[in-house]
Amino acid sequence: MSHNTFGHLFRVTTWGESHGPALGCVVDGCPPGLKLTPEMLQVWLDQRKPGGSKFVTQRQEADAVRILSGVFEDERTDGPRTTGAPISLLIENTDQRSKDYSEIARTYRPGHADFTYIAKYGLRDYRGGGRSSARETAARVAAGGVARLVLGSGIVIRGAVVQIGPHMIDRSRFDWDETGKNPFWCPDAKTVAVWEEFLEGVRKAGSSTGAVVEVEATGVPAGWGAPVYGKLDAELAGALMSINAAKGVEIGAGFGAAELSGEENGDEIRMGNDGPLFLSNNAGGILGGISSGQPVVARVAFKPTSSILTPVRSINQDGEEIEMRTKGRHDPCVGIRGTPVVEAMVACVLADAKLRHRAQVG
Amino acid sequence: MSHNTFGHLFRVTTWGESHGPALGCVVDGCPPGLKLTPEMLQVWLDQRKPGGSKFVTQRQEADAVRILSGVFEDERTDGPRTTGAPISLLIENTDQRSKDYSEIARTYRPGHADFTYIAKYGLRDYRGGGRSSARETAARVAAGGVARLVLGSGIVIRGAVVQIGPHMIDRSRFDWDETGKNPFWCPDAKTVAVWEEFLEGVRKAGSSTGAVVEVEATGVPAGWGAPVYGKLDAELAGALMSINAAKGVEIGAGFGAAELSGEENGDEIRMGNDGPLFLSNNAGGILGGISSGQPVVARVAFKPTSSILTPVRSINQDGEEIEMRTKGRHDPCVGIRGTPVVEAMVACVLADAKLRHRAQVG
Amino acid sequence: MSHNTFGHLFRVTTWGESHGPALGCVVDGCPPGLKLTPEMLQVWLDQRKPGGSKFVTQRQEADAVRILSGVFEDERTDGPRTTGAPISLLIENTDQRSKDYSEIARTYRPGHADFTYIAKYGLRDYRGGGRSSARETAARVAAGGVARLVLGSGIVIRGAVVQIGPHMIDRSRFDWDETGKNPFWCPDAKTVAVWEEFLEGVRKAGSSTGAVVEVEATGVPAGWGAPVYGKLDAELAGALMSINAAKGVEIGAGFGAAELSGEENGDEIRMGNDGPLFLSNNAGGILGGISSGQPVVARVAFKPTSSILTPVRSINQDGEEIEMRTKGRHDPCVGIRGTPVVEAMVACVLADAKLRHRAQVG
Amino acid sequence: MSHNTFGHLFRVTTWGESHGPALGCVVDGCPPGLKLTPEMLQVWLDQRKPGGSKFVTQRQEADAVRILSGVFEDERTDGPRTTGAPISLLIENTDQRSKDYSEIARTYRPGHADFTYIAKYGLRDYRGGGRSSARETAARVAAGGVARLVLGSGIVIRGAVVQIGPHMIDRSRFDWDETGKNPFWCPDAKTVAVWEEFLEGVRKAGSSTGAVVEVEATGVPAGWGAPVYGKLDAELAGALMSINAAKGVEIGAGFGAAELSGEENGDEIRMGNDGPLFLSNNAGGILGGISSGQPVVARVAFKPTSSILTPVRSINQDGEEIEMRTKGRHDPCVGIRGTPVVEAMVACVLADAKLRHRAQVG
Repeated sequence: MSHNTFGHLFRVTTWGESHGPALGCVVDGCPPGLKLTPEMLQVWLDQRKPGGSKFVTQRQEADAVRILSGVFEDERTDGPRTTGAPISLLIENTDQRSKDYSEIARTYRPGHADFTYIAKYGLRDYRGGGRSSARETAARVAAGGVARLVLGSGIVIRGAVVQIGPHMIDRSRFDWDETGKNPFWCPDAKTVAVWEEFLEGVRKAGSSTGAVVEVEATGVPAGWGAPVYGKLDAELAGALMSINAAKGVEIGAGFGAAELSGEENGDEIRMGNDGPLFLSNNAGGILGGISSGQPVVARVAFKPTSSILTPVRSINQDGEEIEMRTKGRHDPCVGIRGTPVVEAMVACVLADAKLRHRAQVG
Repeated sequence: MSHNTFGHLFRVTTWGESHGPALGCVVDGCPPGLKLTPEMLQVWLDQRKPGGSKFVTQRQEADAVRILSGVFEDERTDGPRTTGAPISLLIENTDQRSKDYSEIARTYRPGHADFTYIAKYGLRDYRGGGRSSARETAARVAAGGVARLVLGSGIVIRGAVVQIGPHMIDRSRFDWDETGKNPFWCPDAKTVAVWEEFLEGVRKAGSSTGAVVEVEATGVPAGWGAPVYGKLDAELAGALMSINAAKGVEIGAGFGAAELSGEENGDEIRMGNDGPLFLSNNAGGILGGISSGQPVVARVAFKPTSSILTPVRSINQDGEEIEMRTKGRHDPCVGIRGTPVVEAMVACVLADAKLRHRAQVG
Repeated sequence: MSHNTFGHLFRVTTWGESHGPALGCVVDGCPPGLKLTPEMLQVWLDQRKPGGSKFVTQRQEADAVRILSGVFEDERTDGPRTTGAPISLLIENTDQRSKDYSEIARTYRPGHADFTYIAKYGLRDYRGGGRSSARETAARVAAGGVARLVLGSGIVIRGAVVQIGPHMIDRSRFDWDETGKNPFWCPDAKTVAVWEEFLEGVRKAGSSTGAVVEVEATGVPAGWGAPVYGKLDAELAGALMSINAAKGVEIGAGFGAAELSGEENGDEIRMGNDGPLFLSNNAGGILGGISSGQPVVARVAFKPTSSILTPVRSINQDGEEIEMRTKGRHDPCVGIRGTPVVEAMVACVLADAKLRHRAQVG
Repeated sequence: MSHNTFGHLFRVTTWGESHGPALGCVVDGCPPGLKLTPEMLQVWLDQRKPGGSKFVTQRQEADAVRILSGVFEDERTDGPRTTGAPISLLIENTDQRSKDYSEIARTYRPGHADFTYIAKYGLRDYRGGGRSSARETAARVAAGGVARLVLGSGIVIRGAVVQIGPHMIDRSRFDWDETGKNPFWCPDAKTVAVWEEFLEGVRKAGSSTGAVVEVEATGVPAGWGAPVYGKLDAELAGALMSINAAKGVEIGAGFGAAELSGEENGDEIRMGNDGPLFLSNNAGGILGGISSGQPVVARVAFKPTSSILTPVRSINQDGEEIEMRTKGRHDPCVGIRGTPVVEAMVACVLADAKLRHRAQVG
């Protein structure tokens, strides 16, 4: 129920603002006995960390995660192990530039939550976007690291950017190994240069661009998820749409399925060695809300960054019409750094589904 | 947490199978004092009811809803009023043809949940799809009728089919009044004939087709919804993706936003008489997860009906490879009858958001 | 979250008023594959059923339970089996005497919820107490029957009345087998006559009396429950205090523990064949919120029935001071018929704890 | 659902172990615009803080609380105000004596959760009791401070110890003002000396004793709480029983009500200036689960501290029978320092009830 809590049995409660002293989360429901060190989470945080290339924000944050509770180590546990108690994770905000916020304190930036926060709460922490800042997603990525431990090494979750602005990858060249070799999570080596040139133009123009991220989870056994409101696709949709700047989610063939006929869309089945062998995966690995054993596949549409240098028309909190441009250190394409966040949310949804499944079915 | 419950404060728990004696739901959290009669719910159920045209299933169901609890009437209440107690709604299944299910009892139909239910539960109610049947959505529509009362007449929720198969409407001709004048919820009078011809071909070929439904809620005040996991768009995405056959959800510009620049996408603001006047609505009425006062706009992609007469390859529960065709009374395009369901889910999400908003903010 | 839902993973949502057409519940989260027939639930409902002796209400209700969903039977399931889908249970109200309620419609009966329902909701279903009637507990008992199936035959839950008014049982004569041999669930054969005479006096005086019910669950394995807010004793306390007329709950030594020293209270441990052998059970089978393998023991205090023939002072909805007596068919001691309800709530709590345990620990 | 989360709309998630680096909580759902400084919480923590007298543990902890998120201050907010975002509170553990735990690492102390944690999780953080330590209640007290702000100054919540061991207060001398004048929260000045002498004996004997704490909330308006499982008394019972060492909870007349007749127990009503005037308060301010406007009154039984110097029989993790005594700095009567915790839990329950009430009723 909590607005800041995600999940049912593998539960993540995040807290913190962009320019407060720290941010973090409490992960509750984690099974006991799993080996867990800060380093095992840091590896994921480093993927999301800003400052990695000129195509992401130049804010410098170490994003070093501390584990404040929920693990225990003695000579018998052979390293720190989860105890079943809540795991409190904390990340300090180290690069909160002390600056003059008077310019944006009373301004409603187009595409941002400035107006709606005031409409709801009557006040807002305007420093760097406060709670609405994408810095909150650092806590998600940390939690996603715990979720991956719950899932085990048999389940692999990988994300890739498949479209930036109007430029899509060529799917015939899709190669997961490429995603780690460029700063765009691009799975198509030949598209990297196209995006690089396009983003360089966007950046120089003080503009921004949208993107589409695809995520795939392999190794998910058949049977996770449940009808009706607990459908695995519904849980994924809610989780992915909760990411900052997400405006669309699709599973498997997604919106493309609307154009198909029943014969084209229904994944035919033959008998494999270990069970059904599906001849296609338009379902994205989910049938009736339950995993089928095929790879779970989803895509998320990210809108372009709202903070741009180009002047736009707006109003301020006093109702005066203004023209404004947003200075600062912004990603020209938030979808890129959104990729590890998408992965993390999928990991959390699947960890939750795993626990829910064994609760009901054993 | 419950797999069969939807919502946080306006909570709907549905139950029932396609061929059981009845189906229904319990609506909990409804404010007291609202006038509520079965007729006020029946009007919505009649829109979803099968048998309306040759383009929907020929199953005949009265779908008459009974109110078993939660209302009270005496001379002082001036008609039945909600009491604040849970509202139990029941719809009898009247057209459960007694037939021979032996053919499908052990078959895994492509695109259906047959295999995944067995993988999860070890047994399944195969009669008409059991719990996975779209008949469950009748309970959602009934609950949506209660949700509309919670929202009041100032909030109007309307759905339209904007694409069937490859045929999209012409948006320049979009007219909400048209949606009630044809059997397709089509808002574009000129497209009706195109769809009619297309669907006639689909039906005769024993095939099926997908569709996209658009929904709009006007009159939603600014301030509903909340960061971070309680974002209004996240709640909508989860709700809409839980509808049978849904494979994609987008808010506002949705996947189209991925192609836009920041200047194009950010909705500029001028000062109106009652607050901000947005010059466009790419946000779909939601900023930072909170309603902006603009119309809330979402779209849902429906896959084609999986039950088709065309023979497809599959296996059965014994692991034998088979070729099968699904006989019976099926909608060639489930998106059409999905429209009132989409509306109902949006109504439930908004009623829930209204109650959550006043809980925290008063 | 729902006010009318109980449990986390084994979830029971009840609905219905005393004089509406029916009452019932939806049980969600039940594992699949369990044999379930109406008869298996009816046996528990018959224990709670009114009309059994002159010491309980003379209202005549068959309390016949119907199963509307969540079970399936074919030749392979060997009788109806749960499918994992929500189980809808319905009990019709057959003895809603059509009578004149004008006398109580606007009266606030002392000890009843009349005033507080009006204070909260502004209106109330005054017929037989509406939602506040103990008839609601029939749905709990039905759900408890399902919970017992989830627990299996190794866990035995038994209740006994250990005090009626000032008359306590002699614990040295405690014999569970006696509870089924008298109309009071009395485990002490010699106390039966005392209570009978006492209650006869209470009944003739048009008065009522309180009672204490004790419940014991044997066979609960060590490890169920969890810190901190999920403590098994906290869950039991919330569940038992939710029963109509309950005013106190204690676990193990309970309030008596306040008088003990640490040496007296701490249950010493020796080594048994299958693990720890506790030398006493002041803990009531729960340590740190987690079951220890000892019998789980709780007691519930029931206040005397508020509906009495003796005239008492009150006011009505117009603020006029009145003197009133409550006619009708009331239990002189609600604690007696509360016993199967106490058992049912303990069954539901334990079923929930079982599912939660295997979710986290596997 | 979370085992470590308390509340529905005013939600508190606690984390931390006795000897970890810190403990804390996340408070979610707090309304915006409330003035909140660390000092406003510290005042309550100081009441619970150890080391205050020789009758409580000599562990020295500053228990200084930090607010890491959820508040914002600028010149317009006139001091830090809540923003509606989650409030993260952190308390460092400063007195974690580095000592040798090898003695208790594998021992099951009677009355403690050592065995049950192992039975459940397979490992445990044995340093100072880990998660089962009463240090966790510091986080509850901090959260209770926030809850009091949500309730406002019109609602006053006060606790008193009314029994220590066999020694009860004389209710005719009950004076709330006395509770602040002695180290026992004793409301009866003459009983202070009795308890002092009794506790001195307990302490010198290396023993411990139980206690009963009474709590009263005045100013609660009629109408909070709700049937059936959301009953205010059920919520209180669950909350209070979740406190470490609690073994019993009663509301109003509680277990005493079992001995009363209906005439004695039902609180008669006359007409007051502002509504009903109840002539007694056996109901403890709650009728049908809903507040009546009378003071809400509850009592909690605390068992004696399990950590005692007196040798007791037990076993260790290897199944060996041992005799053991618990050295260390322990409260001889945990009920005393439990008093601010009881108050805090009542504050949290009422804040939650306030938000739930306005969600449904407005």
